[in-house]
Amino acid sequence: MISLEAGFTDDATLPVADTREIVEEVLGGRDARRALQYGSTQGEPHLRELTVDRLRRLDGRAGAPRCQATTDRTVITNGSQQLLYMLAEALFNPGDIVLLEDPTYFVFLGIVQSMGLRARTVRMKADGMDLAHLEAVLSSLKREGELARTKALYMVSYFQNPTGITTAIDRKRGALELLQRYSQKRRPIYLVEDAAYRELRFAGSDVPSTLSLDGAEDRVIVTGTYSKPFATGTRVGFGILPEPLLTTVLRIKGNHDFGTSSLLQRIVARALESGRYERHLERLRARYAAKAATMASAMRDSFPKRVQWDEPQGGLYFWARSPRRVSTGMNSTLFRTALGHEVLYVPGQICYADDPTRRKPNHEMRISFGNATSEQISLGVRRLGSVLEEIVGSGDRRVRESRNRRSHQPGGHESLRPPRM
Amino acid sequence: MISLEAGFTDDATLPVADTREIVEEVLGGRDARRALQYGSTQGEPHLRELTVDRLRRLDGRAGAPRCQATTDRTVITNGSQQLLYMLAEALFNPGDIVLLEDPTYFVFLGIVQSMGLRARTVRMKADGMDLAHLEAVLSSLKREGELARTKALYMVSYFQNPTGITTAIDRKRGALELLQRYSQKRRPIYLVEDAAYRELRFAGSDVPSTLSLDGAEDRVIVTGTYSKPFATGTRVGFGILPEPLLTTVLRIKGNHDFGTSSLLQRIVARALESGRYERHLERLRARYAAKAATMASAMRDSFPKRVQWDEPQGGLYFWARSPRRVSTGMNSTLFRTALGHEVLYVPGQICYADDPTRRKPNHEMRISFGNATSEQISLGVRRLGSVLEEIVGSGDRRVRESRNRRSHQPGGHESLRPPRM
Repeated sequence: MISLEAGFTDDATLPVADTREIVEEVLGGRDARRALQYGSTQGEPHLRELTVDRLRRLDGRAGAPRCQATTDRTVITNGSQQLLYMLAEALFNPGDIVLLEDPTYFVFLGIVQSMGLRARTVRMKADGMDLAHLEAVLSSLKREGELARTKALYMVSYFQNPTGITTAIDRKRGALELLQRYSQKRRPIYLVEDAAYRELRFAGSDVPSTLSLDGAEDRVIVTGTYSKPFATGTRVGFGILPEPLLTTVLRIKGNHDFGTSSLLQRIVARALESGRYERHLERLRARYAAKAATMASAMRDSFPKRVQWDEPQGGLYFWARSPRRVSTGMNSTLFRTALGHEVLYVPGQICYADDPTRRKPNHEMRISFGNATSEQISLGVRRLGSVLEEIVGSGDRRVRESRNRRSHQPGGHESLRPPRM
Repeated sequence: MISLEAGFTDDATLPVADTREIVEEVLGGRDARRALQYGSTQGEPHLRELTVDRLRRLDGRAGAPRCQATTDRTVITNGSQQLLYMLAEALFNPGDIVLLEDPTYFVFLGIVQSMGLRARTVRMKADGMDLAHLEAVLSSLKREGELARTKALYMVSYFQNPTGITTAIDRKRGALELLQRYSQKRRPIYLVEDAAYRELRFAGSDVPSTLSLDGAEDRVIVTGTYSKPFATGTRVGFGILPEPLLTTVLRIKGNHDFGTSSLLQRIVARALESGRYERHLERLRARYAAKAATMASAMRDSFPKRVQWDEPQGGLYFWARSPRRVSTGMNSTLFRTALGHEVLYVPGQICYADDPTRRKPNHEMRISFGNATSEQISLGVRRLGSVLEEIVGSGDRRVRESRNRRSHQPGGHESLRPPRM
């Protein structure tokens, strides 16, 4: 089985030698015991400083000198996932409305569902959110008297999971202005920018974060992670939050775990300050660039012309669109046939929220080059290509027929687990 | 300032050399990359096996051969705190009722409060819960038609935080039987046993966990931790859960963080299987035994006779009771005077839930020997003793007077943060 499914990073790139050296430095130093003791709920001050320095430097290099990150508004979390969860706990009551990119990160959809939130989705363009559609959605929420229950817009702004889209700064600005315009007195609609993939860029130029925008200081939350760019096994993420949200989130984190592991935080801090993090990123980017090129080349060679896709400039994913009539979901002929040919992708459908205002698309695939080797990528894409050729090429009739032919479907799918990240 | 307040473990005991060796073994081994990659949401199978082996061995040695822990019912979490939080999320809706020891672990009270739960408290005896009172509480809930909303009893069974009480096996059995008897069809009242301090015993004999009891398999949850017995900075805990709770908790953990750091899990696993964990525990127990003896001796020498306390057989805390008329709370003369003399304790009041059926006691103190050195313990207890001598010795009149004399109270208390663990 070749998995082009999991959002895992590349095993071969995991920084084993770096981490050994770093742990030696952390536990060999004078301050070693602090790494094995409880820390503060908010996180190690030194790691928060390094985080703010880094964000400012990134935004500066991307052309935005005014990044509004500060150490006292920064919190360190167990991956950025924990922060997304706590933000949802802090922001929403059951039945509240969250604005989502359409499609969006499916693990966030798990949170949305588990908390009983209502989703309103906003269409995407090649460079981010369709602002005219965002305004239409906000305006319709206003008419329905639902603005007071609309608490936040969630945006995965760099190499979005799943589409690979990066949001242009003008779209970020436009979205923030719309949220400000439609926010009611003392009822801000926050902009949550999930920047998890920002550092995994291997082509094109970086875009400033929303922290660089006017009015960001009381309206914008930025979440990020050190797990994906360095070592997923370390699970260290961070966020920059405005008050009073920060206080609420810290109270929640006090109840979750009263602080992320000091050892992990010090490992990440040492990686950053020693320059190993940056050097590791360089290697990682080169490797992902190569694997993305391998995938693009295999897709060009073996995918039918009617399946559309774009080459991403970073991140871990390609997003491929079949003709609308060809379903890609877990129960589809395509998915099951692919499974029979031992190749696995993430069905696009699971990246779409339940939103009564539109039909849920079911003709797309997230295909990851993160964890697979180049050989697996070539082979897996060829297998998927031949399945697509067979099914997309064969037209409507075949797809409809297969619904009544269970024996046509390969077995083994009972053991399928939910997709990862 | 001498802090006899925080539930931190002893800095000097933190296993720096052990952890360096362990990380070398983990990252020097063939399987090193697995330690830096994502793992499963439920936790490393190997650590779950080691955990189950250990629980069975502990229960066996304590005289109970039938410990019902199994690997597939075990989950690894970010300290046991995360499991307590997720259990609360899984079990309760706002307004539901939780049965609590009176007093209980104050961080759990934070969870209870944040989720809008109603607490019903059960009195404690020297060897655990007062079963007659538990039955009276259950019977009154039945009369009130509230049993369907009563979801769990939370019990800190070894060297309870804050009182140091260890629950006898007969009381565990009695409590479980009562919960079974009062559970309605398909509405189990779970027994959550928090065994965080079990391994920190330095006198007397171990007691089997509730997993050894008849009927435990579908009604009992046991939570434990490797943080306090080894290194608090690693933040690795665990739990044994029955279905369908396990599935719900894993879904929640998928949303929290999709799994605890692989690196930390492998460090703890290696500590366990290499024997270092056990050897470390021996050293830790000897050290805490000595520090508890130092504290007991200082309290005997300097506390007034009217302040009562018992010597604990493990854990990190003494629990001292002033006469009822002498308040120990954050705003009390006692607390502020102690602060003026640069010694800090945890006011007993914060360990009591809001429960309309009884008045909240406010005359007790949790005094920790975990983090302080022997010298600090001796000095801190002497300082506290002289403050107690002054205030407890001086009778009612003085305490009442002081309420109107603000100038008598030392400053600096505005900077007080919430107590830790």
